[in-house]
Amino acid sequence: MSAEHDQLSRRLATTTSIAACAQLVCDHLVALGYPLISIYLCRSDRLRCFAASGYSQVLDGFPPVAGVISATVRTGQAHAIDVALSHVYLKAAPSVVAEVCVPIKVAGSSIGALNIESPTPLGPEALRLAGECSDLFARRLVELGGLPTPTGWMYLADQATRVVQIEDPDRLYGAALEIASELSGAESGMVVVGSRTRGFTAVAAQGLLRPQLLALPASSLAEIGAWVDGPLACYTVGSVDGEWFVGFDRLRDAGLGMLVVIALVRGSEQLGFFVVADRRASTPSTELVEQLELLGSLVSSVLTNVRDHETLRDLARRDPLTGLEHNTAFGERLDALRRRAASYAVLAIDVDHFKNVNDTYGHEHGNTVLRTLAQALVAALPAQDLLFRTGGDEFAAVLEAASLQDAMRVAAGLEHAARCVGTPVSIGVAFDEEGGSPDLYVRADEALYRAKRAGRNVTVLAGAHQHSAH
Amino acid sequence: MSAEHDQLSRRLATTTSIAACAQLVCDHLVALGYPLISIYLCRSDRLRCFAASGYSQVLDGFPPVAGVISATVRTGQAHAIDVALSHVYLKAAPSVVAEVCVPIKVAGSSIGALNIESPTPLGPEALRLAGECSDLFARRLVELGGLPTPTGWMYLADQATRVVQIEDPDRLYGAALEIASELSGAESGMVVVGSRTRGFTAVAAQGLLRPQLLALPASSLAEIGAWVDGPLACYTVGSVDGEWFVGFDRLRDAGLGMLVVIALVRGSEQLGFFVVADRRASTPSTELVEQLELLGSLVSSVLTNVRDHETLRDLARRDPLTGLEHNTAFGERLDALRRRAASYAVLAIDVDHFKNVNDTYGHEHGNTVLRTLAQALVAALPAQDLLFRTGGDEFAAVLEAASLQDAMRVAAGLEHAARCVGTPVSIGVAFDEEGGSPDLYVRADEALYRAKRAGRNVTVLAGAHQHSAH
Repeated sequence: MSAEHDQLSRRLATTTSIAACAQLVCDHLVALGYPLISIYLCRSDRLRCFAASGYSQVLDGFPPVAGVISATVRTGQAHAIDVALSHVYLKAAPSVVAEVCVPIKVAGSSIGALNIESPTPLGPEALRLAGECSDLFARRLVELGGLPTPTGWMYLADQATRVVQIEDPDRLYGAALEIASELSGAESGMVVVGSRTRGFTAVAAQGLLRPQLLALPASSLAEIGAWVDGPLACYTVGSVDGEWFVGFDRLRDAGLGMLVVIALVRGSEQLGFFVVADRRASTPSTELVEQLELLGSLVSSVLTNVRDHETLRDLARRDPLTGLEHNTAFGERLDALRRRAASYAVLAIDVDHFKNVNDTYGHEHGNTVLRTLAQALVAALPAQDLLFRTGGDEFAAVLEAASLQDAMRVAAGLEHAARCVGTPVSIGVAFDEEGGSPDLYVRADEALYRAKRAGRNVTVLAGAHQHSAH
Repeated sequence: MSAEHDQLSRRLATTTSIAACAQLVCDHLVALGYPLISIYLCRSDRLRCFAASGYSQVLDGFPPVAGVISATVRTGQAHAIDVALSHVYLKAAPSVVAEVCVPIKVAGSSIGALNIESPTPLGPEALRLAGECSDLFARRLVELGGLPTPTGWMYLADQATRVVQIEDPDRLYGAALEIASELSGAESGMVVVGSRTRGFTAVAAQGLLRPQLLALPASSLAEIGAWVDGPLACYTVGSVDGEWFVGFDRLRDAGLGMLVVIALVRGSEQLGFFVVADRRASTPSTELVEQLELLGSLVSSVLTNVRDHETLRDLARRDPLTGLEHNTAFGERLDALRRRAASYAVLAIDVDHFKNVNDTYGHEHGNTVLRTLAQALVAALPAQDLLFRTGGDEFAAVLEAASLQDAMRVAAGLEHAARCVGTPVSIGVAFDEEGGSPDLYVRADEALYRAKRAGRNVTVLAGAHQHSAH
């Protein structure tokens, strides 16, 4: 160790905070004539600036993928760059022309970097000084017990940046369980989501108590959900006699010692909840409960995003008047059946004399007629078949019909349903046994046109002259 | 103090953690024959369970509005209830029949509650014992310096439950600034949101540096936004010579010493950022940066919710084929003009012989025709006037026309635009100088019907027989 670092060594030896040690190193290098120094340490895969001197701007918390500092941490190699020529330089101060970055190594592994930026070119001397200071700092870091373990809060903060990126519900549930388990040390967990119409359903579970958690009936999930109907946390701290909720005895028999329930809410709506369960009969600290609540807030918000996103996707496919899917979805459905080479039929359906309805009774009435008709047609369709709104008063049905007879029977049912609500329709039917015909809708539409010319309120089969007149 | 508490007093005197003191009190009361004890303390307006004995279930973190514990904390009064008769009892253990709850008071203020639940009725003896234990605990709490100040993380966790409920963007920006200021102690802050099309805009700012922050031009906001294009935090730790971004010199002249920039992101999209600024030249700790990042994640997620919510509301009002708003929005627009008693006109517009288009060329072509027509009509309308799709091939325009002549001129323009794209329309016009007529659309629709009978491709004025035939 060169004599120029003696004073730094002595000062480091009496300083016990890592951030303060890092600051000593920065100030030492400034005193040696290098005005812009920063020290980064890696935590949870992100680079954190622990100290800096002379800077107007320091990036903190960036993922180790960009810039020379990241490269140094990743490779464990020192780098010296000419800012003007480098494509990895991250702009930091207006006058910088050169940058030197050396790794901070503990037990051979690179855990951070010491960085010098400079308004003048940097020679090998800067690289040597930086390396020696980095070594001194690393040695003191080891003496102080290495990097302190990040607290649960810091872990949560790091995970939050990841969780808000999630757009897939299953990945969200998985992340919630993983983070809850890491925070609490608990072995088991479950995510339950609910809707006003369908009640609560377990959507993810993990750990040793997984079978018992998943075996809880919907009524128990509703009971547990009611505990946290509001921004509450709720936890088991022991066990008393008596049945608590259906399935509780099985959880207790399996050794349940702790059960924390955290609400997932959006405004006044309860989206669901998650539970953290463990066989140790530990009482979770208030701090842990608060961390889990924060996780709950985050997951609630992201779950809302995920759902809104799905609703938006769905809405973009739906006609707001009738709630039916329209052309895009219709085309996709046809493509899917074609690919499966299924035997299927397309029905083109058109309201007879709808223009008169609008002209005589006004558009509001016309809209009501279309809504009523759409409901009647959907009710008359077999469950696996779909109705689409393809235009103003035009609909199309896609049938997974095994035979032409089946398709004609469904068409007759639709015609009948339409007459029953006072809105007669004409129908064109096209059927394909092979499922390979790309123009089934065109053929159904042609058949519909012939139905109209045949006097309406009829069903006409494409490629033939059969029709059932009424 | 009764002799039965001597041992508790001695133990409390040697215990320095508040949670451990609370646990001693619980265990002491269990030993006196009361199996179910819990102690709650109020923090950030929420009741936190600090210790409990004998319980299968404890609620934690609930707002002080429900149950006898909340009532005791709120009123500072002791309560004894018969569970079977009480409507404020919150179910806690299967066999409970009675509950006693006494306040924990410091300097005359109620800061928490000590609670006894029991499988047998509770007499005045329980109330006395609970009160004495509560006093002993409160005394020790004061000796230990009172309730510890919640950490920034705990404050953040508490605020998170509030932030995820926010549905109004302005309230969200305000909450972000308030929480960032509370965490950092910084005097100033700003929220900037961006969109791919419109760039960055400051949407909220506060504090002494507010004028300088709001004066930053869009190009500077773009430059600052680029620093955190990714999940990064970025902060100023000092000041170097040189222009940093346009407006930086004015911030520096105003005394800027610290500037933290936190990204707001959704997936790979940058939603914006917020800044925390202060005249003290302090270096924010890594922990503060992490707290602000967590706040950023939360705000990002809630901002996404707020935007999706607006998009959903907007989409529900729009026709997916033409992108025009439909009947709901049309009715609202009419109501608004009626309320303002503005002079306005309604045009009912209908495609001539649209049925033939669909029947001859198919629905896909018909949809294209409608989309093209809608674009042409919108382009022909004055900027302040709106076009709505009111049915399959029916449109309506609402004009803020000053006179009948103005309305007829716009109608002629629409007729012309429709002919130019090869889709002639008929138009019914109704005009109201007073703005008070509730049936303007009905009158326009009647006029349209007359236009159809008059041979189409004409504009007919309601309440008169003027028409311009072509």
